[in-house]
Order: sequence, then structure tokens, then C-alpha cells
Amino acid sequence: MKDKAREIGIEKVLIIGSGLMGTSVALALKHHDIQVFLQDITESAVETAVSRGAGEAFNPAIHGEPDLVVVAVPPQEVAGALEDALRDFPHATVTDVASVKVGPSEAVEALGDEAAAARYVGSHPMAGREFSGAFAAKHDLFIDRTWVIMESPQASEEAKSQVKWLVSACGAIPLRSTPQAHDRAVALTSHTPQLLSTIMAAELLSVQGDELAISGQGLRDVTRLAASDADLWTGIVAGNATEIRPILESISDQVLGLIAALGDPDTNSQTSDGPIHELIQQGNSGRASLPDKHGGSAPEYALVTVVVDDRPGELGRLFAVAGEAGVNLEDVRIEHTLGRLTATVELAVNAASVGHFEQVLADGGWRVQRVVTDTDEATILPASTYESQSASEE
Amino acid sequence: MKDKAREIGIEKVLIIGSGLMGTSVALALKHHDIQVFLQDITESAVETAVSRGAGEAFNPAIHGEPDLVVVAVPPQEVAGALEDALRDFPHATVTDVASVKVGPSEAVEALGDEAAAARYVGSHPMAGREFSGAFAAKHDLFIDRTWVIMESPQASEEAKSQVKWLVSACGAIPLRSTPQAHDRAVALTSHTPQLLSTIMAAELLSVQGDELAISGQGLRDVTRLAASDADLWTGIVAGNATEIRPILESISDQVLGLIAALGDPDTNSQTSDGPIHELIQQGNSGRASLPDKHGGSAPEYALVTVVVDDRPGELGRLFAVAGEAGVNLEDVRIEHTLGRLTATVELAVNAASVGHFEQVLADGGWRVQRVVTDTDEATILPASTYESQSASEE
Repeated sequence: MKDKAREIGIEKVLIIGSGLMGTSVALALKHHDIQVFLQDITESAVETAVSRGAGEAFNPAIHGEPDLVVVAVPPQEVAGALEDALRDFPHATVTDVASVKVGPSEAVEALGDEAAAARYVGSHPMAGREFSGAFAAKHDLFIDRTWVIMESPQASEEAKSQVKWLVSACGAIPLRSTPQAHDRAVALTSHTPQLLSTIMAAELLSVQGDELAISGQGLRDVTRLAASDADLWTGIVAGNATEIRPILESISDQVLGLIAALGDPDTNSQTSDGPIHELIQQGNSGRASLPDKHGGSAPEYALVTVVVDDRPGELGRLFAVAGEAGVNLEDVRIEHTLGRLTATVELAVNAASVGHFEQVLADGGWRVQRVVTDTDEATILPASTYESQSASEE
Repeated sequence: MKDKAREIGIEKVLIIGSGLMGTSVALALKHHDIQVFLQDITESAVETAVSRGAGEAFNPAIHGEPDLVVVAVPPQEVAGALEDALRDFPHATVTDVASVKVGPSEAVEALGDEAAAARYVGSHPMAGREFSGAFAAKHDLFIDRTWVIMESPQASEEAKSQVKWLVSACGAIPLRSTPQAHDRAVALTSHTPQLLSTIMAAELLSVQGDELAISGQGLRDVTRLAASDADLWTGIVAGNATEIRPILESISDQVLGLIAALGDPDTNSQTSDGPIHELIQQGNSGRASLPDKHGGSAPEYALVTVVVDDRPGELGRLFAVAGEAGVNLEDVRIEHTLGRLTATVELAVNAASVGHFEQVLADGGWRVQRVVTDTDEATILPASTYESQSASEE
């Protein structure tokens, strides 16, 4: 397979750490025109990765110096592994895939070696599985996932382009950031949700009798992350304590405010003017602010808005049209506008049936106002990717 | 359709409140040999429900007194609606489907009317949707979902059997409880997860720039509940404040403990002996304590344990056997036991392929130790259902 790798100087990639991430990177690189080598302090991890066809066990005496080194070790060991790699392979570009980026970046800076710093570009693929280890690795783990690449004024153009190649070769979407901005962002969007999920799940240990028999999907969703590996997450959380603490302090204030509101004999605190209602509405807004497109779980509904005469029977007639057209209505919201003889009806339908439904409505003389789909709004990611930004700079 | 309804005295069911729950109950009862009537203070809600074939708009002058009344109104209005129903229909059995049960129960007790109390049996179907209103109603909303029925020493046998019929007619699984035990259980398994999800989502409003671009499925899971209706949930939370507060106080302590551990210069707090690791492990245990069977999302894996000789190549040979047998291995855990020449390998495979895989392994001379499936362990619900308990009592 013809590949860009050789053009930018990559023939040999060494992956240090044969866990879920390292082995998945190796598997993703399998069909590129390069050699992939594996190394791990645990021999059986390398054996498992090799048995899955991820590459060859690395032997420096035979294989020589790699061009690109990917450090994929547990969080506590990243700094040491980076130092070793930069020293042992004095011409290689080195990246790591750790979930926290300020620590590794400072560790490289602390070496006081400009040449080494020029060869280091940290990165973080936003992907994972509920299982860990080489065996859980998947060649498609990174496809269409965001992979954050650190901006570093010290890094050479060659190192940057090699790490960018790695991200693209794994099928991921590159996103630029700085170590500080990255760590603050993951504290908010990944580490704090992890810890709240953990705290909620830990609370379940206070269960009395059969209480969990009535637990439903909501509890299951909130506590899914709580199943995460304790060793890995202790390392991640400890490594990003600086960014996580202020967010937890803010959350602590919210919890205390809620406890106070729930104990307030003034019932205003519990009405639609009160603090509980306000908090739930803020939660509604926060949830709605999540980008839809790359989540995978948000239903892909589209809203079709129809203006109807505000009189009995019109709604039933409209529903009948949808039924006859074979369009499944998921939700409907009706707004009666004061002083007008028309009502606005929003119909939530499967995004795929919008075009057909619009046509049927227009043919039947219904006034279709506009169509908004989730997909139209989901532009936040493409607008901020590495690719689109660098296109305007280069 | 022949039905048990008439045998236990139900010909007419009145559903008060044509929202998601009320209309779904009405739709579920459609194919039973009874008349279903609908009532709501909002005329368009009844119109929508009727247009969906849920039943007839209730007219007491024409339809007379119902035999069973289902109160399905917003939480703040339940107590009043129960009083009205017990007064207006002096021979009817009355139930409600509110998410909190001590309040309604106390409201009925406060009437000081033993005959009325004998006709009231509170209940709570554990089902919902992300949409609300009559239009979002589904005839199969309750199928295989738990529906809690209150034990009440005041209630007549007739009233109890009629509410139990309602639950079965909707396809739900009846589970007995008391108002106090129910409210404590939902505080832990439903209301607190809701509030933590809300608090996490509200925190996202502090987002800076494009930070949400790197949000993933974990954040999405944790904040899914945060999209819930603010009016409805203010009512639910306020109505169960007594049970929610102590749980939130315990969670507040956990959050403060975590903040302290993250700020602790003693790095022990951040190692596998420290409080962060301990909390995450407690979360692991809490999550693992959830019943699997009725959740729908937990993967139905089974573990096949094989004892292999502890030497290079054995693992690869085992994986090859799985591959040839067409068995997809989801995970593998290997334990090398000190001082023994064998290792124990746990293979996680799709539950459906266990029998086949076991046979293949046995035929090939592999030592299969034991098989544990998730399904074997998921007995908590059947053992505590209304049906199985009452079978031994009646």
C-alpha cells in the first residue's frame, strides 16, 4: 500500500506499552507501509499483542532506532517513559497518548534539552473501551474519534507532521490544543463526569434490601463510567488534580445549595421560581450545549414545523396525514399564539423521513414553516479541527 | 377479547391527566374488554389522546361513575386530584402513578375517611420517555417494566386486586413496597442520579471556547437525565426532599473528601493505597451491584475460564482455537499463579456462544474450569416480585 509515511520520514514505529491504547494504535497502523514494533515491561502483554498481529516484539539490536515512538503506558509512568525514549532514540519523534498533558509536557521541558523538546509532540486520542489490555484492542478504536495534538512552540515541523500523520493513519480527527487548555477541558468533560459517576455508584453500597430492584436505565447511564479501572483512573485524576479541584469545588457548592433548598420550609424554593427549578433548567441548557453529531447516542430527529388553523380537528387531520405517509411522529409541540387564529405545530420525526414528509405536507396544502435538523447544527467540531485551521495558516 | 377485568368488577376506567403516563396507560388498556375515559384540565391534551385512539373524553353525565380511576397528573397536583377522585366517585378504586408515594398516601390518610382509604392503592410504574405529553405516549411503555404497588393495611382486597389487574393489563411486572421504602429507594436510584446528572450538566455552562468539542460518550451518558423536564422534576424532587437530603449529604461528604485528597501533598492519597483509589473501587463495586438482566444495556458476556500451561505460545494457541470456532473474544484476563506451572485464563465471550465454545475446547483437550454467566446471577427481580411473594401467601 502506497503511503505518505515514507515521504515524511517514517519507516519504523515503536509502540511502548501493549495495553488497550498501544495495541490498538499498532493494529490501526498494520495496513500502512511501515514496520510496527512493540515493547512492554510485561512480556505476556507483548505476546498477546503480537499474537493478534499487531506487530513484532522490539529488539533494538536487530531493529535499530525507530523514527516515531508512541508512549502508551499508565499515567504514572508517562514522564519516565518519555525521558527514556527521548534519550534512547536520539533521532526519533516521540509522542504519548496519555489523558493528561501538562505533566508530560513539563517533564520534557524539565530535561532542559532543546533538541529533545523539538522531537516531542504530546497527543491524546479520545477513545476507550470498557475492557483494558492488549486483548481488548481494536484496529478501528480511533476511527472518527477526536485525537488532540498539542501545540508546542519548541516542536519541529517534522515532529508535528509525523504525529499528525499518526493521527490520520489511525482514522482519527485531529484537534489542536495546548496542554493547559486540554487539561482544563478534559477535567470538565471527562474527569469530573467520571468522578461523579463513581460517587453515585459508591453511594449504592448504602442500599437497603431490594432497593436496586427498581433501578432503571437512568441510574445505569449515570453510573456506567463508574466501572472504569481504578488503577488507571487514580493515575489520571491525580495527574490532573489542579484542573479538577476547582470544578469539584463548584459542584460541591451546587450540592450544598440543593441540600439547603430541599430543607427550606419556604416552598418558593421548590416552585418554578425557586433554586431547584433554576438548577434543573441550567442542567437542561448544559445538556443541550453538547455537540450532537459525534455522540452517537442522541436520537437523530428533525423538527418539521407546520402552521395550522387553531381549531378543533386540525391536529387530528395533521396526524392522520403523517400516518398515511408512513411517517413515525416521535413528539409534537403545539404553540397557540395569543391573538392569532393559527397555531404552530412542531413535529419531531426521524431525520431520514423529513424530505418525504415535507413533500406530502406541501402536496396536501399544509403550511410547512422550516426544517431544522440536528445535523445542520453540528458544526462545532469540523470548524475547530486541526485540518481546517491549518489550511488557512499554511 | 375475554378479560379478567369484569370478574373483578372493572368495566369503566377513568384516567385523569392525559400526559405521557396517563395516555400510555389508556393505550395499553385499549385491547382489554373495558371502556377507557380520559380527563385533563387542558382540553387539547384530551383531544390529542383521543385522536390517538386512547379512549373517550369523559363526560360524567353520560358515562356515570368509573370503577377504577387512575390519577396521572403532575406531582404537585396529585394530592388534590386524589381527594377529588375519592369524593367525586364514592364507589371507585383510585390509584395514582406519581413518582413519590409518601405524600399521596398521607394526603389520603389526612381525609380521616376509612371508606375512602380502603379504596386507595398508590402505585408507581418505573417507565418514562425523553419526550412528554399525550403525543409521546406508547401502548407498550410499561411492558416488562417494574410497577411498584403500595402495601396499605387500610386498602380493601377488591381495591388491591383491581390495581394489580391494571399493572398486569399494562404488561408491567408488579413489585410490592411501602410508601416509605419506595421513596427511600427512588431517592437513591432515581432522584439522586437525576440531580447529579443535572449538576454535571449545569457545570458545562462554565465551558470555555471549544472545550465541548472533545466531549465523548461518557459525558453524554452521565448527563442524559439532565435533559428531563424541569417542572416535572422540581415537583418530584420537592415531594421527596426528606429522603433525598441525607443521600446528598453523604455525596457532599464524598466530594469534599475528594477535593481534600486531590489537594493533599502527601502523594499516598493518590496511589493505590489512597482515598481516591478506594473511592473508585467503591464505585466499581456499586456499579457491579446493579441487577443486569432488566437494564438492557449491560453487555451479556459470559466468562469461560481455561487452565493452560504457563509457557509461551499457549495463549496464542488458545486464541486461534477461538478464532477457528468463530467465537468472538471480548476480553481476556490472565492470572499466573506463583509456584505453579499453569495459568488461569478468563475469556469473555458472547453469552450465546458459551455452549459451543465449551464443547470445542473440551474436544480439543483444553481444561475448562467453570462457566459463569451474567444471567445466572440476575435473580434479584423475580425473587421479589409481587407475583412470587403473594403466591406463597395466598
